[in-house]
Amino acid sequence: MNLVFLGTSAGVPTKVRNVSGLALRESKGKGWYLVDCGEGTQHQILRTRLSLTSLKAIFISHIHGDHCYGLPGLLASAAMHSRQAPLTIVAPAGVRAWLEATFEHTQLGLPFALEFICSDQLPAVEFENIAVTTTRLSHRVPCYAYTFTEKHPDAVLNIEKLRQKGVPRGPLWGQLKQGMDIEVAGERLTSDAFLTFSHPPRKIVIAGDNDQPVLLREACQGAQVLVHEATYSQALAQKASDVGHSDAQRVAAFAESVQLPHLVLTHFSPRYQPGSQGSPSIEDLRQEAASVYSGALHLARDLAEYRLDKTGHLAEMTGE
Amino acid sequence: MNLVFLGTSAGVPTKVRNVSGLALRESKGKGWYLVDCGEGTQHQILRTRLSLTSLKAIFISHIHGDHCYGLPGLLASAAMHSRQAPLTIVAPAGVRAWLEATFEHTQLGLPFALEFICSDQLPAVEFENIAVTTTRLSHRVPCYAYTFTEKHPDAVLNIEKLRQKGVPRGPLWGQLKQGMDIEVAGERLTSDAFLTFSHPPRKIVIAGDNDQPVLLREACQGAQVLVHEATYSQALAQKASDVGHSDAQRVAAFAESVQLPHLVLTHFSPRYQPGSQGSPSIEDLRQEAASVYSGALHLARDLAEYRLDKTGHLAEMTGE
Repeated sequence: MNLVFLGTSAGVPTKVRNVSGLALRESKGKGWYLVDCGEGTQHQILRTRLSLTSLKAIFISHIHGDHCYGLPGLLASAAMHSRQAPLTIVAPAGVRAWLEATFEHTQLGLPFALEFICSDQLPAVEFENIAVTTTRLSHRVPCYAYTFTEKHPDAVLNIEKLRQKGVPRGPLWGQLKQGMDIEVAGERLTSDAFLTFSHPPRKIVIAGDNDQPVLLREACQGAQVLVHEATYSQALAQKASDVGHSDAQRVAAFAESVQLPHLVLTHFSPRYQPGSQGSPSIEDLRQEAASVYSGALHLARDLAEYRLDKTGHLAEMTGE
Repeated sequence: MNLVFLGTSAGVPTKVRNVSGLALRESKGKGWYLVDCGEGTQHQILRTRLSLTSLKAIFISHIHGDHCYGLPGLLASAAMHSRQAPLTIVAPAGVRAWLEATFEHTQLGLPFALEFICSDQLPAVEFENIAVTTTRLSHRVPCYAYTFTEKHPDAVLNIEKLRQKGVPRGPLWGQLKQGMDIEVAGERLTSDAFLTFSHPPRKIVIAGDNDQPVLLREACQGAQVLVHEATYSQALAQKASDVGHSDAQRVAAFAESVQLPHLVLTHFSPRYQPGSQGSPSIEDLRQEAASVYSGALHLARDLAEYRLDKTGHLAEMTGE
């Protein structure tokens, strides 16, 4: 599972950071998922190897413009690139209402179906290789985190157990391996009972804007990675008396409290200068987070790609 | 008067061309006007010296997404940059309806007033230094051209005439020079009668999508520059059986018929490769237009800036 950051700036774009957008690529094949879609997300996609044709679903954390104003243009471009496969959009109700108003007023017709799933009902959504759950966050408007968990990672059938149960070799074995439950001689057999995994499933929690990281305690159980906004430093957050966002220390302290192996911070206020140039600097946020967090800490940059490998280790990919 | 092209691609962005957006800068001061606002226009503005604070008005040619999907984000960013001055938006009725739906659904509140002027009524709009008129075009949806004419260019008072009429030196002279009419001893005196101009007013016609350039015959009278889309070559336009767009030859033939001094083509289908690389190439469009047009021909590139000087000559600016 790879993460490609398409935008890491809060509120407004800067010369080097776009507003929110994050691609989650499957480890196999070209399929990918998009979390948030600020204006210019489709432009950032042009700078990656991602294709609008192999996009499987879009998840929107909340209705604020820097997280969704890129949706109409991205959908229009997918249409112009002749996408035909249906597309799932998991988003708060307001996003659906806005998109439908946009289709009507701007005369945008899509040649593919949209399947809307309302985040406000905290849905669990299953895809071929990934299962997604939804967690409510604390922000000025309804806002959500999405947790992506790998399904059936490299499952191996327990042959001994299959023989004991008298399951005949053939299609039934295949169904179990694919995670389906079966029935043999009137008895229901669940796939989990016959599968062993070479590694624990990879699990990534991607949060929207949120001033209470502790709401993610349950979602983070068994997760290797949390991606969370750190809009400000602690001092600046207090000064700005901002409601609805987290500071770097608050997020890092939470990650430490649940012993999360990898924390990726993003959604930085545009006032923070890249690198260590200028003041305040992104490095201020890094130092603040590192002072309370003992895991592996990353501060996302636009177009940076991270790979979460089968052992559960996250590392930034460099070059080709 | 300067033109800064913010996007020159039709329909979808490419790696080197954004969708439609064109800035018209006043020759004096920082004031500027924006014609069309495709997604990512605010990102392009970050790459220029233009500021959202000194933007005087936005003109939208029509409701299609590649001409207006950048509006919500641009307005939101102007708000976050603390703009307070009212902003005029001249646009078809659908744009206003879409923006109002966007404000409501995405909870976007602006700290400055918007003054909407409906293009469908072909308004004439006056600003301090510029007068703008509207012309209806032929496209799949209501679509307009906007003609920008310089007001009172370097007016000089005719002192001799003022003395003959017995207008006393003082505030009245100033009013006449600013283009205001006055009354002296019961007689109404129009400013035009007492002013001479060192050069004819500069006049630029900026058209939206349009398959009948001839509709611009009247607007082009006295204009030095026409900016018009040339989405395809003639051969490709016939092949694509596209409705509502022009090909390079059709626009150039029209410009020739009205003896227009300068023609700037833009809004190229993304299939055309930059420069002379690949096929089809932007150069194909240049050759097609040049074969029927004897004036000065330009094919716009993103972030290229052109200056229309007082003599009515248009030239691309190079470097600082």
